[in-house]
Amino acid sequence: MAKRRKLGRGVAVVGAGMSRFGMFRDRDSKDLFAEAFRDMTASVDKGLDPADIDALYLGNFSNDYFMRQSHWGPLISDLVGITPKPATRTEGACASSALAFREGVFAIASGFYDIVLVGGVEEMSKRTTEEVAEGLALATVPYEGKAGFTFPGVFGAVATAYFEKYGAGREHLMNVTIKSHENAPLNPKAQYPYTIRDMMEAKKASLEKRGIPVPEWEDEKAFLRDSKVNPVVAWPMHLYDCCPISDGASCMLLVAEEIAKNFTDEPVYLAGMGQGSGRGFHASEALTYFEATRYAAKEAYGMAGMGPEDVQFAEVHDCFSIAEIIHIEDLGFFREGEGYKAVEEGRTRLAGPKPINTSGGLKCKGHPVGATGISQLYEVWTQLRGKAGARQIPNKNLRVGAAHNLGGTGGTCTFTILERR
Amino acid sequence: MAKRRKLGRGVAVVGAGMSRFGMFRDRDSKDLFAEAFRDMTASVDKGLDPADIDALYLGNFSNDYFMRQSHWGPLISDLVGITPKPATRTEGACASSALAFREGVFAIASGFYDIVLVGGVEEMSKRTTEEVAEGLALATVPYEGKAGFTFPGVFGAVATAYFEKYGAGREHLMNVTIKSHENAPLNPKAQYPYTIRDMMEAKKASLEKRGIPVPEWEDEKAFLRDSKVNPVVAWPMHLYDCCPISDGASCMLLVAEEIAKNFTDEPVYLAGMGQGSGRGFHASEALTYFEATRYAAKEAYGMAGMGPEDVQFAEVHDCFSIAEIIHIEDLGFFREGEGYKAVEEGRTRLAGPKPINTSGGLKCKGHPVGATGISQLYEVWTQLRGKAGARQIPNKNLRVGAAHNLGGTGGTCTFTILERR
Repeated sequence: MAKRRKLGRGVAVVGAGMSRFGMFRDRDSKDLFAEAFRDMTASVDKGLDPADIDALYLGNFSNDYFMRQSHWGPLISDLVGITPKPATRTEGACASSALAFREGVFAIASGFYDIVLVGGVEEMSKRTTEEVAEGLALATVPYEGKAGFTFPGVFGAVATAYFEKYGAGREHLMNVTIKSHENAPLNPKAQYPYTIRDMMEAKKASLEKRGIPVPEWEDEKAFLRDSKVNPVVAWPMHLYDCCPISDGASCMLLVAEEIAKNFTDEPVYLAGMGQGSGRGFHASEALTYFEATRYAAKEAYGMAGMGPEDVQFAEVHDCFSIAEIIHIEDLGFFREGEGYKAVEEGRTRLAGPKPINTSGGLKCKGHPVGATGISQLYEVWTQLRGKAGARQIPNKNLRVGAAHNLGGTGGTCTFTILERR
Repeated sequence: MAKRRKLGRGVAVVGAGMSRFGMFRDRDSKDLFAEAFRDMTASVDKGLDPADIDALYLGNFSNDYFMRQSHWGPLISDLVGITPKPATRTEGACASSALAFREGVFAIASGFYDIVLVGGVEEMSKRTTEEVAEGLALATVPYEGKAGFTFPGVFGAVATAYFEKYGAGREHLMNVTIKSHENAPLNPKAQYPYTIRDMMEAKKASLEKRGIPVPEWEDEKAFLRDSKVNPVVAWPMHLYDCCPISDGASCMLLVAEEIAKNFTDEPVYLAGMGQGSGRGFHASEALTYFEATRYAAKEAYGMAGMGPEDVQFAEVHDCFSIAEIIHIEDLGFFREGEGYKAVEEGRTRLAGPKPINTSGGLKCKGHPVGATGISQLYEVWTQLRGKAGARQIPNKNLRVGAAHNLGGTGGTCTFTILERR
């Protein structure tokens, strides 16, 4: 049982930025972080002198493996011009930058620093798909990887078990995909800013142009059912159930609560945060939940003095469509076995009562793994400040949002609740 | 200029352990960490229930690269039985576990956790020397690595510049080596527990046995001057100026100051800590100092309200013999350009006024890079508790010791001061 956690000093987020996510073969990690840093700097209402930054935390999964360059902390502190101030890399697989956020919070809450830059970066697209798959598999538990239980395999098995237990099916996964693709065109930083319908029309046009007979797809689901368009990856995971390979960077400016108003009249505050670890599915009682997510949620709700009902919207780690369904249950937004129904009923859509992944999620926004955690928090921050443009949640009383980030096959999980006061 | 830093809550070290360091081709990172954890648990005077540990921080440089396995946080939390509690990996090249220590401190000082396990691990000897060299080069600044400025090359250039500026020579480097090898046989965990004289006698016996004429080495320096025994690596760095390839693990138990007495009647307290980052030598005014070390020292002394004269002994990052000489200057123990004289005069010997690397240092104790930072703090803790056995510093009023850890070519540096009250 998690104890009630609290911090000795409050922390506020006064700036956030991210690069566009995508596959950028002519841009490196420094280029991407520079874009995110400029975006963040521009978001600080009363301005930021980078010389005031006390320290940097940077999430990166494995540029060691992907780019044959490690030790990114000082490379990025040099880039943003704060050397010789400290720079620390955190790694927790796909949750690497959520860990950077957390260490930035601790460093401020401890009283040691007042102004901390936290961020994440990953550069993946210069590798082949095979190399990326091999690299990502470094983050699985050895018992899993050696048993062939790599990422699509794990989530395929998870989906199969979930279907069996709760009576869901592949059509329910499609609802997640369709919803994410509804949000993505509203996000100018998304890697795939297209609705499923956009892609269906484009495919039709392309086939017609080439004189190939066009299938009669009566709707998005028919399109997704067509295995020529959406081939199986690891049953029941199909291509459109899986997030893409991406490059990108994200960052945030954290400051001690008592100086937040020096940076903006509208700070967003940290309300709660939690982190959990997992042993892997070889040691799990079932495939249909993530223990680490549940632990992280308990810790975060405890600190915030809030429950799932208080979180008005969330970014949730949807590396695969089934992950989103299971996590919205693990986080307590919906009951066990009812997540897929909530999605089907439209409850998680942008205009629904509990919007999930307004950014388009990992599926459409992209998933440069080390950058993802803070990009999720960027979305929450942006929504809470009412600056999300076309994808702004229509609720006029938006006050509390959260981000959930998963690393590996549930090895590392974080849940972070932000609030506007 | 570093601000005066302080923590909102004090932190104590109530347990410390390490595996033996060496090349263990039949033992993996989990085996090594288990040994360190058992050693640490046995050191907690009033006992430890692992279930009371709130979180884990683990330093690891690149088991991604060396062992094709990343995401070590949850693997080690599983090993020590604390899953689903959080586990976070930190990376700062050869300073990776000093960063884990620091994040453990912040997590407690913030008020969030009370009892945190911090540690480090690295597994290197299963790779060839060429692969290790390639792996370590991932931690250099790209401008350096691509210019052929890998580790022995960097420190060879640093030594050459130091010699030129201050009139030192290769014989002065030998003094560091001879001193480290004096201490190592007194450390049962050291990889090379031999004096230079031991090795000279062993070499003589081996040559005699094989009927080969034995050179007339009149003393240790003559032995080290013999290029058959001590070949050049990167001038003026010879084999005995360089630390070895090692496997090993280390850990410590950190607790909030107010509960320290629940674990031991003799806690050791954190007095000061600092961290700095560096841009690399392409951006440095000279090769004869490390900006990141100086920044880290300033931050740590400021927090402790102490100066170099208050630190009675230290572990100092001696990846190469020249590094120890330069760092004892950068840390303020001796004036610029006088470190080599201090070593020559025996001031840094075990019985001298400022003992340096009583453990045998990286040179003799070994340097499993991710484990090194906390193994240095282990030595300081052990000395302060009067438990260093044959290598116990003879000063009966030992009260303050420190550890200095360097990552990359000065990209990351930490300095940590511990005290007995």
